[in-house]
Amino acid sequence: MRIVFIGDVMGPIGQQMLGDYLPKIKAKFRPQLTIVNGENIANGKGITRALYKMILSSGADVVTMGNHTFDKDEIYDFIDEASKLIRPANYPKNVTPGKGYVLIKVNQATVGVINLQGRVFLDSIDDPFAKFEEIYTEIKDKCDAIFVDFHAETTSEKIAFSWYVDGRVSAVIGTHTHVQTNDARILPGGTAYLTDAGMTGPYNEILGMTKEKVIERFLLHRPVRFETPAEGPGQINGCVIDLNDQTGKTSHIELISISPDHPFID
Amino acid sequence: MRIVFIGDVMGPIGQQMLGDYLPKIKAKFRPQLTIVNGENIANGKGITRALYKMILSSGADVVTMGNHTFDKDEIYDFIDEASKLIRPANYPKNVTPGKGYVLIKVNQATVGVINLQGRVFLDSIDDPFAKFEEIYTEIKDKCDAIFVDFHAETTSEKIAFSWYVDGRVSAVIGTHTHVQTNDARILPGGTAYLTDAGMTGPYNEILGMTKEKVIERFLLHRPVRFETPAEGPGQINGCVIDLNDQTGKTSHIELISISPDHPFID
Amino acid sequence: MRIVFIGDVMGPIGQQMLGDYLPKIKAKFRPQLTIVNGENIANGKGITRALYKMILSSGADVVTMGNHTFDKDEIYDFIDEASKLIRPANYPKNVTPGKGYVLIKVNQATVGVINLQGRVFLDSIDDPFAKFEEIYTEIKDKCDAIFVDFHAETTSEKIAFSWYVDGRVSAVIGTHTHVQTNDARILPGGTAYLTDAGMTGPYNEILGMTKEKVIERFLLHRPVRFETPAEGPGQINGCVIDLNDQTGKTSHIELISISPDHPFID
Amino acid sequence: MRIVFIGDVMGPIGQQMLGDYLPKIKAKFRPQLTIVNGENIANGKGITRALYKMILSSGADVVTMGNHTFDKDEIYDFIDEASKLIRPANYPKNVTPGKGYVLIKVNQATVGVINLQGRVFLDSIDDPFAKFEEIYTEIKDKCDAIFVDFHAETTSEKIAFSWYVDGRVSAVIGTHTHVQTNDARILPGGTAYLTDAGMTGPYNEILGMTKEKVIERFLLHRPVRFETPAEGPGQINGCVIDLNDQTGKTSHIELISISPDHPFID
Ligand SMILES: [Fe+2]
Ligand SMILES: [Fe+2]
Ligand SMILES: [Fe+2]
Ligand SMILES: [Fe+2]
Ligand SMILES: [Fe+2]
Ligand SMILES: [Fe+2]
Ligand SMILES: [Fe+2]
Ligand SMILES: [Fe+2]
Repeated sequence: MRIVFIGDVMGPIGQQMLGDYLPKIKAKFRPQLTIVNGENIANGKGITRALYKMILSSGADVVTMGNHTFDKDEIYDFIDEASKLIRPANYPKNVTPGKGYVLIKVNQATVGVINLQGRVFLDSIDDPFAKFEEIYTEIKDKCDAIFVDFHAETTSEKIAFSWYVDGRVSAVIGTHTHVQTNDARILPGGTAYLTDAGMTGPYNEILGMTKEKVIERFLLHRPVRFETPAEGPGQINGCVIDLNDQTGKTSHIELISISPDHPFID
Repeated sequence: MRIVFIGDVMGPIGQQMLGDYLPKIKAKFRPQLTIVNGENIANGKGITRALYKMILSSGADVVTMGNHTFDKDEIYDFIDEASKLIRPANYPKNVTPGKGYVLIKVNQATVGVINLQGRVFLDSIDDPFAKFEEIYTEIKDKCDAIFVDFHAETTSEKIAFSWYVDGRVSAVIGTHTHVQTNDARILPGGTAYLTDAGMTGPYNEILGMTKEKVIERFLLHRPVRFETPAEGPGQINGCVIDLNDQTGKTSHIELISISPDHPFID
Repeated sequence: MRIVFIGDVMGPIGQQMLGDYLPKIKAKFRPQLTIVNGENIANGKGITRALYKMILSSGADVVTMGNHTFDKDEIYDFIDEASKLIRPANYPKNVTPGKGYVLIKVNQATVGVINLQGRVFLDSIDDPFAKFEEIYTEIKDKCDAIFVDFHAETTSEKIAFSWYVDGRVSAVIGTHTHVQTNDARILPGGTAYLTDAGMTGPYNEILGMTKEKVIERFLLHRPVRFETPAEGPGQINGCVIDLNDQTGKTSHIELISISPDHPFID
Repeated sequence: MRIVFIGDVMGPIGQQMLGDYLPKIKAKFRPQLTIVNGENIANGKGITRALYKMILSSGADVVTMGNHTFDKDEIYDFIDEASKLIRPANYPKNVTPGKGYVLIKVNQATVGVINLQGRVFLDSIDDPFAKFEEIYTEIKDKCDAIFVDFHAETTSEKIAFSWYVDGRVSAVIGTHTHVQTNDARILPGGTAYLTDAGMTGPYNEILGMTKEKVIERFLLHRPVRFETPAEGPGQINGCVIDLNDQTGKTSHIELISISPDHPFID
């Protein structure tokens, strides 16, 4: 089975890059499952019903989220019926709308997709390691493969998590820092790992936010309204993994990184 | 001019990787200037006189540091005479031993090498943006090219800094997260940029620290003594940049990443 | 019922202040229950078996802890048999030695004493609000009164917790900042509240640590070895609360603050 | 000379408490100088021209600020002409509107009032210790006394600063945590110290913000819009210091804390 994952889609330019390139990427790699992180698609913060549908219609099977999940109030109107949308599973139990994982039928196989969020330099929600154990116990017998989008700030928490679950899931792909890392590998137990998939959005800005504003914040240390631009060159980042349908082990992981400096190659 | 940069060397395995591969890397790329970040070379924390000399004798011309600069007390014995060692320039003025930049003769040219440290999720030292201005004013007329090792945690601070100095320096290469990023590029003004060069040390651990201990810390949230192992497979990470001797603009940046999964190729 | 609470006992001077003044405080206020926070008693970090016994023998019935609970390895040798020692209840479930609350017989009544730790600017352990609910459900029918030592950094988390549990517990007394606050009050539901009880230890240092070293850290931003002095004037801080034996509501809270500037008055 | 200081005024209830009680406090204590922290007066965030004038007309001679200084854009319209308004002096040099200290004529004497902001768990601006030295060198010969509003989160940074400047200024009064501390004292060199003066605003909320919203944030860890209520019981907190006109040393410090539980006494 082949899975394509696309990192944090950011604002209008991210939407356009996804709409333009996800079909091409799918045509090239022919994945059976496509997962897109959508936590920044609505102007950098959150998601709306229309944009959720837009991600699905551009070719995604599952949409994952992160610390920006609830930034747009509109999410409360559709999250409970959005069957392909997952938010970090370790938000507080019983009181958080939506769900933290989903089981997807891929031909004869069932793939569990889990979204978790780290806690170092991020909000103190529930323990992602403990929450993984809880979900894993629940779904392992129902799944042929498990994919984790681990949304976190630090390299240490992401790498620690990957070794912790090595051999139990097919892949741990990191998101949130918006910069793709060059450490894709297969751990000894067969788990694919990548610290960060990178983002999908503006190429000449800072994490997708207008660079002048971000620089101003660093220089002045006064309140600045960040914004994500609507025009300019874009990038799309992610990865492809190939896993063995029998064992769920991953045999191959490859980066996707398309930008003006690295044009799409058929 | 060609410059090779090697990211944070970590403990005994880092020393060995540096000793084994830096000569090979130099033979392959034939750089005129070689810079190595040594902040973690002494068991993960700081540097000693012997290890400083070891880095130079393995082929480095300049050693940069970071937030671990002063972890080993021994540094106070030699930092003021270590003419090729620089520590983050934005440590408090007048009271910090050592220096934050150095000018190096490379044939007929003079290259300024600056070490700066970010402040987001790191200690609140002096402003790296303002300190850059101060140093830049001081050295720009004496230098044909300027190289910055920007030691910082977040992608936003590193990218913001790179755009801020674009066109004024030849390269901003990030360190500290110990994971190489895949975003090497030349900004419009001719400044090469890479969010993180990655580390040099153990390949199967967490940022160079024994993985069982780091995972234990995440699971238990109790004090754990971290350690860097002395044995096991290693990796060495960094980059090569080519810059125009007349303009100081960079024309090419390329990643170096050697590990069991990516063996050195001559 | 009257309860005396004494804030974080810090190193040798804290031990001496506790030994000298707790008997006098008890003679003056004649409490039925005495609780002492001991997280810093062993040189500022953690506790030993001998010091645990010392706290009890100076007149405490229960010893509470905080983020320094496990700083001294020796605690692993006696925590499970230390029936009067509690550590923050929201350390990770199932894997943390010791216990987070204790039920104490006070004449005919049973008092539950709970230790919880905040998460803002402290380690991301389990949710203290959710953990309180869990314990409260378990013990409310067995207890005539409940006392909470809420060990946390920020005023917001402590005050939020107090309003959240108002009417369900007799008192929420904060610890950790080592400075006594002047906001003691009885909330509308009958819960006594104090943001911080203050510390017990050196009077002319910084949170109990030698002031020259702490100032040096702020000036130099380099590693400094903190230490708690063995000699010099001391202070002891805490509070007294009076609660109705029938209802468990608190009717009175009063600060204890003894130092060279505020000598003990019989 | 007698100085009255009033801590962070918060929203409409804070305005009303200030208007109602500052005249009474002044009538009771008859200070020669009155200083009010106004960083939260405009709905909890920032200040407007009208509210700046309101603080002065209720009896203040100087208005200090903090991390919320620039929250309301309107401040840019009047800060440069607001001769009695100071903001933390250690905001970035040359690029920050307004000023960080002011010299005030009090009869024959000149009092320097300085506003500084801490950096622990707050934004990384310039070093408040170094900035103090710079200002102190500049003004010490022109001043008979110096008063510092040190706006910071942690007890350690505030206490460290007070010992660092002991004997050089008349008082270091802390603000920002919104909870008055009970550690008012005169340090050996004659500097009055108080970790936090407390706030002026709602009495039954959390740091002045509607408690239900703050509790919701702790329970849900999702975005919540904080607000400061316009109605309900209020409190006003601060302190009074008496200093020797010849030496500038402080001889007496006393807390002011007025609330429904502690009514104003003539
Ligand atoms: Fe994101
Ligand atoms: Fe994120
Ligand atoms: Fe490092
Ligand atoms: Fe570092
Ligand atoms: Fe403590
Ligand atoms: Fe503590
Ligand atoms: Fe405030
Ligand atoms: Fe503030």
